[in-house]
Amino acid sequence: MTWIAVDWGGSNLRAWLMQDDTAVAEAGDRSAGARTLNRDEFEPTLSKLIDPWRSTWGDRPVMILICGEAGSREGWFEAPFAQAPCTPRTLAPTRVPTQDAGLQVYMMPGLSQLRPKPTILRGEETQISGFLASHPTFEGVICLPGTHSKWAHVSAEEIVSFETTMTGEMYDLLAETSILRHSVAHGDPDGIAFDEGVDVTLSNPERLVTEVAAIRASHVLTGATKTAADARLSGLLIGAEIAALKPYWLGQQVALIGREVLCGLYARALSKQGVPADRFAAGPLTQAGLFTALGTLD
Amino acid sequence: MTWIAVDWGGSNLRAWLMQDDTAVAEAGDRSAGARTLNRDEFEPTLSKLIDPWRSTWGDRPVMILICGEAGSREGWFEAPFAQAPCTPRTLAPTRVPTQDAGLQVYMMPGLSQLRPKPTILRGEETQISGFLASHPTFEGVICLPGTHSKWAHVSAEEIVSFETTMTGEMYDLLAETSILRHSVAHGDPDGIAFDEGVDVTLSNPERLVTEVAAIRASHVLTGATKTAADARLSGLLIGAEIAALKPYWLGQQVALIGREVLCGLYARALSKQGVPADRFAAGPLTQAGLFTALGTLD
Repeated sequence: MTWIAVDWGGSNLRAWLMQDDTAVAEAGDRSAGARTLNRDEFEPTLSKLIDPWRSTWGDRPVMILICGEAGSREGWFEAPFAQAPCTPRTLAPTRVPTQDAGLQVYMMPGLSQLRPKPTILRGEETQISGFLASHPTFEGVICLPGTHSKWAHVSAEEIVSFETTMTGEMYDLLAETSILRHSVAHGDPDGIAFDEGVDVTLSNPERLVTEVAAIRASHVLTGATKTAADARLSGLLIGAEIAALKPYWLGQQVALIGREVLCGLYARALSKQGVPADRFAAGPLTQAGLFTALGTLD
Repeated sequence: MTWIAVDWGGSNLRAWLMQDDTAVAEAGDRSAGARTLNRDEFEPTLSKLIDPWRSTWGDRPVMILICGEAGSREGWFEAPFAQAPCTPRTLAPTRVPTQDAGLQVYMMPGLSQLRPKPTILRGEETQISGFLASHPTFEGVICLPGTHSKWAHVSAEEIVSFETTMTGEMYDLLAETSILRHSVAHGDPDGIAFDEGVDVTLSNPERLVTEVAAIRASHVLTGATKTAADARLSGLLIGAEIAALKPYWLGQQVALIGREVLCGLYARALSKQGVPADRFAAGPLTQAGLFTALGTLD
């Protein structure tokens, strides 16, 4: 079967032309994140992106499966949340009304949890489903670092519970908008500065709020380099996240899903705690998770 | 002696026409914060603000003393920091070069500290000096909540050490720029929601990063009101600050200097820890601190 898999996150749109479970072509639009579009811009944006592939279907409707923030309240179409605990492979997508009758669009449901703490996710449920398709006996914790990092306890093919932190968004706000913008600059991550930042907040998470402020003062007073300050900020925030999620990873095996560089930083921080973590790229898992969901439509 | 006292912070400019230690007139410009101006805009902005008072001096130069972020690297004129530990009443202002020879402008030095942690402040040194002018025997902690909150250990008329958190700026970034902007709205502080937020991070400061994210989910899932979410966010951040500064306030008497509403929230949170805190408005203390500095010029 020929279909289109779409990962439509807050800041990026990616689509793959799929032949069964295999991606045969890829297209993306980094300026079309779900958070940047008005509701009526979603369908034309997607339509334009996939237009080169459209002839594949002839007169038949184009089958499109989407996961991610496009399904949120501020996105294209609010798909009702499935509720944790749940079995990811049973999650079924919802049909999205379209102007163009030639598009058959479905949206993944995302996941919500009320207890022990209110939490929501959109897109990660599909990546976890894709991961479990090839690791059905996995027991442990899946961490998906990013703008809003997610941690999920997985047991017996079920997401038992999950947690959210805003680490990536906090990093962006602090580095680009706050007073720290004068003192940090992206660069090669400075290994020592990152590690020192992680050490501080992992062992004393209450110091996050004073240590972040000290980055500004260190730059002004000691001329600490902006790239080292950037690495320290990253370390302080990731260390604080890992400290907060200790009840999740302690004594568990951990799988990291996401961007290679980011997963590398989390793996490095976790290894300091004696926690080995396997790493997986998000794209193939998203495709696998959407392929699993395609099966629920038959 | 007739002179002008100026508190020029990051987001606000306030000036007082002074007769010795008494303010006889006041002027302000909320759109002329030091963080919003280019270097060459400071002198004309101040000149315009004080113009109605200028005739007081006749042909003699107008004496102006300034404290606050106008003296920072990104401000009007970078005044070299004095270093803690120090005695606030001995801090001497630096002459600022002006285009207009009829202006005699002096800038307070701010304060820096390298150990135990790099920290800087601009303006608070003057408020502390003003506070100690009327409380010379005070021993304990002075907390100045705000965009960047400051905590200072004071003993024998000396600032022994101080700390910074970015609580106010973090609150603004989260409430106005982050994903939480869809879920919070300013309103009457909700007493219960504020107190609950404080309780969480005061007792478990590592939970700050997950609890802040849960504000968004609570709104989406349970319809938590935006004003209650705002109060909870405020409570979580202030609780985290007070938890981080525990080595400062534990077993000490505390004086709070700043805006009435904000000092009220900090006093409320501190009282939960059995710490009574006296509150003082910043304006009169700034005037008193600048009057003390005027004495060093004689």
